[in-house]
This record gives sequence, structure tokens and C-alpha cells, in this order.
Amino acid sequence: METQINLPEVLAEVTDAFYRYEDALVHNKVEVLDELFWDSVHTLRYGATENLYGYAQIQAFRAARPSAGLARELLQVVITSYGQDFATANCEFQRIGSSSTGRQSQTWMRTAQGWRVVAAHVSPLG
Amino acid sequence: METQINLPEVLAEVTDAFYRYEDALVHNKVEVLDELFWDSVHTLRYGATENLYGYAQIQAFRAARPSAGLARELLQVVITSYGQDFATANCEFQRIGSSSTGRQSQTWMRTAQGWRVVAAHVSPLG
Repeated sequence: METQINLPEVLAEVTDAFYRYEDALVHNKVEVLDELFWDSVHTLRYGATENLYGYAQIQAFRAARPSAGLARELLQVVITSYGQDFATANCEFQRIGSSSTGRQSQTWMRTAQGWRVVAAHVSPLG
Repeated sequence: METQINLPEVLAEVTDAFYRYEDALVHNKVEVLDELFWDSVHTLRYGATENLYGYAQIQAFRAARPSAGLARELLQVVITSYGQDFATANCEFQRIGSSSTGRQSQTWMRTAQGWRVVAAHVSPLG
């Protein structure tokens, strides 16, 4: 059976979760960021300057991160859902006051607790 | 129902696909790289210096890419499968002759034709 792409109700759920994450990121709502990452040793986040393996490393990074300079504008957002339980969310962004752009990739999974990021990668465009 | 993580037979399949891709990448086997990306307008690849949207853009990039200097060593590989049909594959790598490292993230989906990359992100560690 072919996986059904972008079922409207699934896409709407993931889109909500994505923008909830974005709001939490720019306002440094650490508890929401922590909530939306999958609480697992398998969770992984490659950031611009760090590689974080497992939920504990990601959580420690959030807790230590300065809250200034997080404001950014989304330039292009592509969210795609695959069946009922998986999705990817990718975006290009520009930090306020910066001329360069970055890219953020997330893989989302539906869990019993809601949609969670299981893997993420953020980097500047070289 | 909780998604079953790293079912051995699923993980083995994705691991095979991941290393087939790696071999194709370092040897510039463009036809294999093309095969292993999902042939869809939804497929997306953020590279070190380019953002590619849709299979056609990715294919055009492969066709135009110089084949020299692609050799690299994998430093750390984390492959995780979610249920029967989805997986993420993340790795750190070092190009031969370079002291800096990069990161590659892929989201894989099982299709009727086999496992395919539906989204990818490659970047140097800043």
C-alpha cells in the first residue's frame, strides 16, 4: 500500500506542532522546546555548531542557551506528512539583523503524547 | 499503539540502503543516487551550499556535480527505524584531506520500489 502523502488532517496537526515549536524557539520557551522533542536516547539534533545525541544532551543545550538573538523570519516552509504518523518539516530562515540564511530540518513522529521531533538539523547556507 | 523502534529486520533494510547510498556517493554513481531519492515534488535536499526542492532539482544537481573530491570517512552513524516504513539516518563525516567534519541527515520511507530518501540535509559543523 502506498503511503498517503499530506492527508489534510495529519498535515494540519503537524503544521500546528511546527509553528508551536517556532514560537517557542524565538521566545525561548524552553519547556515547550523540551516537550516537542522526543524523550528518547535515539533523538538527535545537529545544530550549527554542535552535534547532540539523545534527549538529555538536547535538553542540557536548551537550558544553557542564551535567550538573546533568537528572533528570525521564516522564508520558505515545506511540511510533508507520510501516512498518519510521520512527517518532515523543513524551512529556510533569516535571523533578524542578519543577511545570511539558515535551514532547519525536522523529522516528526506521532507518539502517545502527541507529535514529537525525533531528529533535527540546523545549519547556515554556506 | 506505540511505534516500534529499531525492529531488527527493518533496521537491517535501512542500514543496507544507507550504505548503498554512501558507496554511490563516494563513487559518484549518479544513477544509484537518483534511484535512492524519492521521485516526488515533495522531496527536498538542503546541501552545504544549495537548497533543492523537488526530485528534478536534486537530479539536475547530481548530473552537474564534479565527481572529484567526494571521498569521505564516516565518523559516527546513527540509524533509527520507526515502525515498518520510516527511518532516519544521521552521520558525521570527514572528507579525505580535510580536518573539518560534516553532518548528513536523511529521512527514509519505504515505497513500493524500496526504501527512498524523502528529505536530506548536509552541512559542515560550524
